[in-house]
Amino acid sequence: MALFRSLSVIGPGLIGSSVLRRAREKGAIADRLIAMDMDPAVRERVAALGLADEVTGDLAAAAQADCVMLCVPVGAVEPVARAVLPHMKPGAILTDVASVRGKLGPMIAPLLPPGVAYIPGHPMAGTEFSGPDAGFSTLFENRWVLLVPPEGAPESAIRTIRALWDLCGARTRMLTDEAHDRICAVVSHLPHLLAFATCEMSADQPEEILEGVRDYAAPSFRSFTRIAASDPVMWRDIFLANRDFLLDSFERFAAEARDLARAIREEDGDAIMRRIERARTMRRSLR
Amino acid sequence: MALFRSLSVIGPGLIGSSVLRRAREKGAIADRLIAMDMDPAVRERVAALGLADEVTGDLAAAAQADCVMLCVPVGAVEPVARAVLPHMKPGAILTDVASVRGKLGPMIAPLLPPGVAYIPGHPMAGTEFSGPDAGFSTLFENRWVLLVPPEGAPESAIRTIRALWDLCGARTRMLTDEAHDRICAVVSHLPHLLAFATCEMSADQPEEILEGVRDYAAPSFRSFTRIAASDPVMWRDIFLANRDFLLDSFERFAAEARDLARAIREEDGDAIMRRIERARTMRRSLR
Repeated sequence: MALFRSLSVIGPGLIGSSVLRRAREKGAIADRLIAMDMDPAVRERVAALGLADEVTGDLAAAAQADCVMLCVPVGAVEPVARAVLPHMKPGAILTDVASVRGKLGPMIAPLLPPGVAYIPGHPMAGTEFSGPDAGFSTLFENRWVLLVPPEGAPESAIRTIRALWDLCGARTRMLTDEAHDRICAVVSHLPHLLAFATCEMSADQPEEILEGVRDYAAPSFRSFTRIAASDPVMWRDIFLANRDFLLDSFERFAAEARDLARAIREEDGDAIMRRIERARTMRRSLR
Repeated sequence: MALFRSLSVIGPGLIGSSVLRRAREKGAIADRLIAMDMDPAVRERVAALGLADEVTGDLAAAAQADCVMLCVPVGAVEPVARAVLPHMKPGAILTDVASVRGKLGPMIAPLLPPGVAYIPGHPMAGTEFSGPDAGFSTLFENRWVLLVPPEGAPESAIRTIRALWDLCGARTRMLTDEAHDRICAVVSHLPHLLAFATCEMSADQPEEILEGVRDYAAPSFRSFTRIAASDPVMWRDIFLANRDFLLDSFERFAAEARDLARAIREEDGDAIMRRIERARTMRRSLR
């Protein structure tokens, strides 16, 4: 018996289509897969790729599933939840994969119909590509999914969403909204801000230098700026939703970078070494 | 007939040991391989790995080769060249793989004995690992090597060094010292500075956030900071040697980053989108 009789993915992009692909491979996730998107071009791709049993543009129809997963940009989670929730049935679970919690939990909790649980989980997985063609069924393998249910969420629904991510190959951990947003500011949002700024700076170089950058981009530049190819709407929403923690991280980063630049300007080799050693130790401590 | 009767690699670390491995695989590079290092532990590893026909701590002996390649940190290139050059024989070529040109060309050119050519080339290849165990024979495949010979360098020696890198699987291009240093400030040195600063900032987080960063480091953080695990001496030397162009790039970066942060603070979604779109276009234009 599958975990859900039916699973709806609303917004089958990189993340959503990867969940659908995984569910296709592992029958244990859901007996019936529904993909909903407002964009007819996305629906056409999802249908052509055979990712779901039903592909629809009708939110109310998609809301009938046992589990409704919102895979839309952060800024769209609350309005889409408002539209979906009145159509959901008792015993069903609403989840999302938003990269920022902000006030989503407290905003959505009071909207829940009787018997509907809200158990969001943020998969720490992704690539710089987007859309239904970008997904793959192993995207979540050995990745963390950070569960951030609002206070008082039913234990059984938490266990069910844990089981969903287990079947996707991921590991789960529960966090408070604030810890989640602080950590993600450092491990994801700030690196994106800096990678975007680095690419903007490169684009402003005199033409002969820019040509050289394009031609000779070292492996360091490529890995450092990989994430700067990410989806603009998704990242605008994330930056706005996690504004305060992100800007706090940015100020701390800017202070460290200025200090390192000063050591270089003053040709203080020992200070440069100490700073690099410290950075390297931190990098090597990642698990 | 091989390109060189003998090739000496001085400093067989990541780059030098990769050249030796490639030469081992492709007999066409040199009939005899010599590895020289001041550090007995490095010599022991090179001997154990079987990377050279002769492993020595004697600079004068290594200087007897047809081609002497300096694979030492930037700050050591000039002093090691001074020690090696008096022992080199007419018709031989001195080369180095330094990541910054600075004044190396003009400093070394007047030291050349009659008949000895200096044809440095900087391979745009590398990883965050270092030492003789870190090398691999395919490191240079499809990578650029930027040749930066001093004015008046003999054409035949340039062709020979081109042929060496061809045999390593790389592509070569000639650049002026200044264009090289400006481009490398953007494509390599600045990303390292920013990755180090990001890791330092992360290390300063409150313990519970730092633990979260270590545990949940997203793919974005991992790829963004990969290069922060690089060798401290090598990078101190690069930062000092390319100080002016690096700090110029840093100031331009800092201005872009501040503008993006301001747009986020002011919740100016359109400005954020425009900036991300521009960054993304630049990133996608890499060749």
